[in-house]
Amino acid sequence: MNDIISEIEDIFHSKSLAIYGVSRKGGLGNILLQGFIDQEFPNLFIINPRITEPDVEILGVPVFPDLESIGKPIDLAICSTHPKYVKDIIIECGKYGVKAVVIFSAGFGEKGEQGKKAEQELLEIAQKYNMRLIGPNCMGFYCPETGLSFFPALPTESGPLGFISQSGSIANILAFSSMLKGIRFSKSISYGNAIDLGFNDFLEYLGEDPKTNIIACYMEGIDDGRRFIKLVENINKPIIIWKAGATRAGSKAAHSHTGSLSGNDRLWNNVFEKYRVNRVYNLEEMISMIQAFINPMPVDGRRVAIISGPGGPAVSSADACEMNNLKLADLTNESKAKLREYIPEFGSSMSNPIDLSLQATFDPILEKNAYEIVGTDPKVDMMLIWLTMLTPRYKDLLKLQEDISKPIAIVSGIDVNVSADSFSKKVKRSFIHIRAKKVPDIIKNLNQKGISIHPNEHLAAKALYNIYRFYNSNAN
Amino acid sequence: MNDIISEIEDIFHSKSLAIYGVSRKGGLGNILLQGFIDQEFPNLFIINPRITEPDVEILGVPVFPDLESIGKPIDLAICSTHPKYVKDIIIECGKYGVKAVVIFSAGFGEKGEQGKKAEQELLEIAQKYNMRLIGPNCMGFYCPETGLSFFPALPTESGPLGFISQSGSIANILAFSSMLKGIRFSKSISYGNAIDLGFNDFLEYLGEDPKTNIIACYMEGIDDGRRFIKLVENINKPIIIWKAGATRAGSKAAHSHTGSLSGNDRLWNNVFEKYRVNRVYNLEEMISMIQAFINPMPVDGRRVAIISGPGGPAVSSADACEMNNLKLADLTNESKAKLREYIPEFGSSMSNPIDLSLQATFDPILEKNAYEIVGTDPKVDMMLIWLTMLTPRYKDLLKLQEDISKPIAIVSGIDVNVSADSFSKKVKRSFIHIRAKKVPDIIKNLNQKGISIHPNEHLAAKALYNIYRFYNSNAN
Repeated sequence: MNDIISEIEDIFHSKSLAIYGVSRKGGLGNILLQGFIDQEFPNLFIINPRITEPDVEILGVPVFPDLESIGKPIDLAICSTHPKYVKDIIIECGKYGVKAVVIFSAGFGEKGEQGKKAEQELLEIAQKYNMRLIGPNCMGFYCPETGLSFFPALPTESGPLGFISQSGSIANILAFSSMLKGIRFSKSISYGNAIDLGFNDFLEYLGEDPKTNIIACYMEGIDDGRRFIKLVENINKPIIIWKAGATRAGSKAAHSHTGSLSGNDRLWNNVFEKYRVNRVYNLEEMISMIQAFINPMPVDGRRVAIISGPGGPAVSSADACEMNNLKLADLTNESKAKLREYIPEFGSSMSNPIDLSLQATFDPILEKNAYEIVGTDPKVDMMLIWLTMLTPRYKDLLKLQEDISKPIAIVSGIDVNVSADSFSKKVKRSFIHIRAKKVPDIIKNLNQKGISIHPNEHLAAKALYNIYRFYNSNAN
Repeated sequence: MNDIISEIEDIFHSKSLAIYGVSRKGGLGNILLQGFIDQEFPNLFIINPRITEPDVEILGVPVFPDLESIGKPIDLAICSTHPKYVKDIIIECGKYGVKAVVIFSAGFGEKGEQGKKAEQELLEIAQKYNMRLIGPNCMGFYCPETGLSFFPALPTESGPLGFISQSGSIANILAFSSMLKGIRFSKSISYGNAIDLGFNDFLEYLGEDPKTNIIACYMEGIDDGRRFIKLVENINKPIIIWKAGATRAGSKAAHSHTGSLSGNDRLWNNVFEKYRVNRVYNLEEMISMIQAFINPMPVDGRRVAIISGPGGPAVSSADACEMNNLKLADLTNESKAKLREYIPEFGSSMSNPIDLSLQATFDPILEKNAYEIVGTDPKVDMMLIWLTMLTPRYKDLLKLQEDISKPIAIVSGIDVNVSADSFSKKVKRSFIHIRAKKVPDIIKNLNQKGISIHPNEHLAAKALYNIYRFYNSNAN
């Protein structure tokens, strides 16, 4: 473990925490604090020099006018004050032996030259005291295992996903969106302007972190391209990157957001392509790709079998596969003969894409048999399954997957859980459906077996291709 | 009104209906029947020659051994039997003066030469009796106004969307998916193998139908390309087409699904481009584009203002706009000065994309003010708004839109209604949210004002560009 990695590991295992910017009247600092309270972080202290009377508590957390008054060692500080107070806070933290400070406060490098000078000054102070800085203009860390947090109401359960984000809000939104799909984090990092620890440091750390199986990132630009390339070349875990600033307009926006230079997009694409980094373009795509890589099934061919009840989406899924560099599997004659025994004679198709006809909606055994026959076919490497909606039949897939261990992507069109108006009650009566509150756990179970669920066939096909490419260095 | 249009109008206004293929033990025919019962279609009769005893009812609908025994005129027949019975049914319907038959049964042209010959025979019989055929291999018609249906539990309320689908299942899935977004239909048509009435006939009909404001289609291929081009050239309503069979694999799949020749995809794209048809590639895109065109706001410029609480999605939305041929609006100095009064000094951006900072999550007035200042800026033609989730603040937008009447697209990341597990309860506590059962009506109200909601920024930008192109023939 090199120095930076062990320092980051220490920060994630901070045992005591002081937070600046919490006040009696509330505000962002109080919201950050609530996050730590929800995670039951053990040793929390509020520093507010305006509150000098003894034994004051806010949200049940003791308030001190300065670090000195706490009288105990503090590992980590969070600074959520007006930017004009940050310098003095950094000095105080340095003197008191704090190991790292998360500067939540914005109003530095992203605001121009003067802000950049202020950042330089903060960095020099920190270096003098051998203290690490995260930010400014960031949300900091979320780590359920050790109780770090950047927002209230985040899951306390850990998971395999490590996330690195230049944008604080995206770290936050991803945590909430993916929560509803049963996705859990090892660590989530929002690093903002990165005057000290930055993207590459955290990428290197997550690359070696035994608790992280998959790395996802939101980035606008990075400082050291060579180091980045060396890292993605050597990290053997799946890496998913949402790289914004792809266009002239986006690049300009990135500059005023985090002061980033987003670079030449074609160069980025070449690097991503060469090192099999999975590039995504928005949150929806990112969640699709995360699901696919929670526990991807090793595969050395790209022959996909498409199974669909509805015939139209079967045709569209064939398009999506070809557009994503996949091949339609040619089933063995044995499989075709077996399918012929089960699939209705009319309104169906035995050749790939396999169209089970409307009958599939009413005959659960039909789907189960088709999954088994197609899934065990030696000429099928991967499966793309179009479901009208998620039904209890997902259990058939979970069971089959134990035998076949092939990448499976599901497209699910109607989410009966989206609304509860009078019509959706009727819909729920017409189809076998799953209780809303069970959905995140079901998705989680599917993901853990290498089965992912996607909002459309193009993302499902992209996920399957990316899994294939991950395991096959000479893929094209 | 030409002959075909008035004939289709008559079919949609059928007053009596006989259905073949309903049995005591249930099956697809019974499900079709339940659809008509749910729509309270007035004069329903079941024809089943195996049931000869008098006064039998299935699902409360009287059963007769043949049309003759009903003793009343029948306008429309639905045939959901094994294909081997279809010919005799068509003959019986013709003799009895039925005006049109929907042949739900599959097993004809899509199965090869013999099936095509059988289709030709059916057509000749129908023509002899001056009767129109729909299908085979289709779901037929859904028309809430007159009580026609193709599935149980569909809304009984009418709306502005006319839909034409070669695939029955997509007609069905779209009806259910869009129901959950408050979208309602004037007519939905699934025409299958189209041996008699086909895509162009229904397109022409919906083009002239005063109840239809927007036309969406799923198609694999059509017979008469010249007629299609003439129709899209002359129809002044927005047309959205999901054209499958775009690739070699998809085209092959289309052929075994509906026997369609899907044609050269580049030619299709040229036609769509020239006549400003909105091409989409999957159901998710189709629902996005339908929402955008329910009541599009006329616009003659493509300068978009992006407003976002979170900064990361603001950058990505700028990318999405440039990728979709839009321009980022340059706000007037007056607007910028006004924004400066309201927007927090730090962690925000006053230049487009306008980043309201995390503060927006906690300060509703901030968003409201930003919407007003930016929306009324004369240099802004359209707005793209990134919301972490749908909140009661949608009302501010509805009100503002009355003054500005500009196209507005919302991207909404987290759907708190997706699940009800213990975490989402916490999420609901942390954010102001909307009750799940209100969501479809809210989306409907927004759509009626020209505001659409999208799952990601790329679909939002595509929707805005397509609206701009719809109103500007020289757009490129």
